Amino acid sequence: MTRTDEKVRYSPESKGDGHTRDTAAEGVENVLKLLEGRWKLIILFHLFGGNVMRFSDLERAIPAVSQKMLIQQLRQMEGDDIVRRIVHHQVPPKVEYCLTEWGQALCPALDALLFWAAQREQMVQPSSAAEDGMADG
Amino acid sequence: MTRTDEKVRYSPESKGDGHTRDTAAEGVENVLKLLEGRWKLIILFHLFGGNVMRFSDLERAIPAVSQKMLIQQLRQMEGDDIVRRIVHHQVPPKVEYCLTEWGQALCPALDALLFWAAQREQMVQPSSAAEDGMADG
Repeated sequence: MTRTDEKVRYSPESKGDGHTRDTAAEGVENVLKLLEGRWKLIILFHLFGGNVMRFSDLERAIPAVSQKMLIQQLRQMEGDDIVRRIVHHQVPPKVEYCLTEWGQALCPALDALLFWAAQREQMVQPSSAAEDGMADG
Repeated sequence: MTRTDEKVRYSPESKGDGHTRDTAAEGVENVLKLLEGRWKLIILFHLFGGNVMRFSDLERAIPAVSQKMLIQQLRQMEGDDIVRRIVHHQVPPKVEYCLTEWGQALCPALDALLFWAAQREQMVQPSSAAEDGMADG
């Protein structure tokens, strides 16, 4: 007996947005695409909390990233409305980076992912694979 | 003037786990790795809500996936403690898939990502790129 009903719409437990299972999966996939990029998460975590950093601050904070790559990641995040680039018209020119309001709003969602990851140990029983051993039905 | 202090630990707003910015970024990255895989999110959203599905149910629900790929994704999710494979020892053998308790606990975190994505329109001002146009400082 099957307990699935493909016509039932996916309804998130907390915030109903009228998603179907397909659009929910696609929506999350689109978010993951925004976060891909080798350095974006570490940039995000450096800017969370209303931090404002110059390019050189970010370079110092993330020593493993090349200048070219850091510029590229910041540009992409700016284009994705996550990072804001603030230009101070002075001599010499000063450019700072911070998160947009929307970028900052990502913090609780990433916290939720970290919280989930932290639950693994308590929730997963060590020997749950014991019942395995037959073909897919 | 810089407002960053690299010695300050990253403290999530809600659930303090003693993360630094680096370990928080790494933690989220590890979660994203679990969710990569072309079909994992759609499988997740089909199994959320305590759904129990046979392999053939999942095939019908996700017609674009090949049998080989579906098996591979389910095996990986099983290995990652997200999906549970239930073997009923009967003739013919019956195998069902559902989420582990931990897999099910991913739902609110993915909801948080969807909620964040839905906020973009209200939070992002259409012409915030106007101040751009100078070199990185």
